[in-house]
Amino acid sequence: MPISKPTKPVSLKALDAPPRARASSYPEKFRARVEGREKRPLGDLFGLTNFGVNLTRLAPGSQSALRHAHARQDEFVYILEGRPTLITDAGETELEPGMCAGFKAGTGDGHYLANRSKRDVLYLEIGDRTRGDSATYPDEDLQVVQDAEGNWRYLHRDGTPY
Amino acid sequence: MPISKPTKPVSLKALDAPPRARASSYPEKFRARVEGREKRPLGDLFGLTNFGVNLTRLAPGSQSALRHAHARQDEFVYILEGRPTLITDAGETELEPGMCAGFKAGTGDGHYLANRSKRDVLYLEIGDRTRGDSATYPDEDLQVVQDAEGNWRYLHRDGTPY
Repeated sequence: MPISKPTKPVSLKALDAPPRARASSYPEKFRARVEGREKRPLGDLFGLTNFGVNLTRLAPGSQSALRHAHARQDEFVYILEGRPTLITDAGETELEPGMCAGFKAGTGDGHYLANRSKRDVLYLEIGDRTRGDSATYPDEDLQVVQDAEGNWRYLHRDGTPY
Repeated sequence: MPISKPTKPVSLKALDAPPRARASSYPEKFRARVEGREKRPLGDLFGLTNFGVNLTRLAPGSQSALRHAHARQDEFVYILEGRPTLITDAGETELEPGMCAGFKAGTGDGHYLANRSKRDVLYLEIGDRTRGDSATYPDEDLQVVQDAEGNWRYLHRDGTPY
């Protein structure tokens, strides 16, 4: 949630929303892969708490996340600009503006978007805020669990903290 | 939810998603106002259950809904095409592609989008599925409550059913 503001907007141009200050909460060794990722939280600006909506830009060579699968929180993306590659257990799928994809919690099928093109990718990402979530990372020695306060704690697969 | 399908898509072109068959569940006297509204449920096609995402088209002269305020479910809209008018307690706001708005549950501030232009409006609408929701309609003799099975029941303001 942003610092509380005196008034909430009625509407806004999504690209006018401020980018999130912190680029990534991943352990240091994984951060370079998402360095070209810029998230603008939109739902928070209107006081929404049940789900989050981000306008996210991926520079060429960047990716949306490490490949991951949530236990409880659903995710959805809608491509606005550019041509990202979606990677899941089904393989690789080229996306274009007007295309969308959804990632049901609990399936174990990890996903991420990679920008292998020469221009920016811009998309909306939506995720709910169901508590007690966790995520697995099928390609990494990594897992994340959400504690009682809603903070994410990154662990090795064997449960030792990063 | 749609009739169960043998496999879920990895991704899809949003405009290729089938429109919802039922145009509106409003009591008969209110339905004409949303006749030019066409909703394509997107999240359901990927098996998402925590929130819904629709691609919604409003023909000229149509509107998104009766002016309403949810008790528990947050809502968010992102305009893809066209220029709808957003009506809330703050008055009227003209929107254009790339603009968004969010409607926090529990505020009592009713909202809807009206297409007063001569071309279609296309937007994404997102709402969570928190149970036990209800909504008030500040301009109508209408309220709606969600029963234990998740069905919506429309009532007059005095509580008598439609």
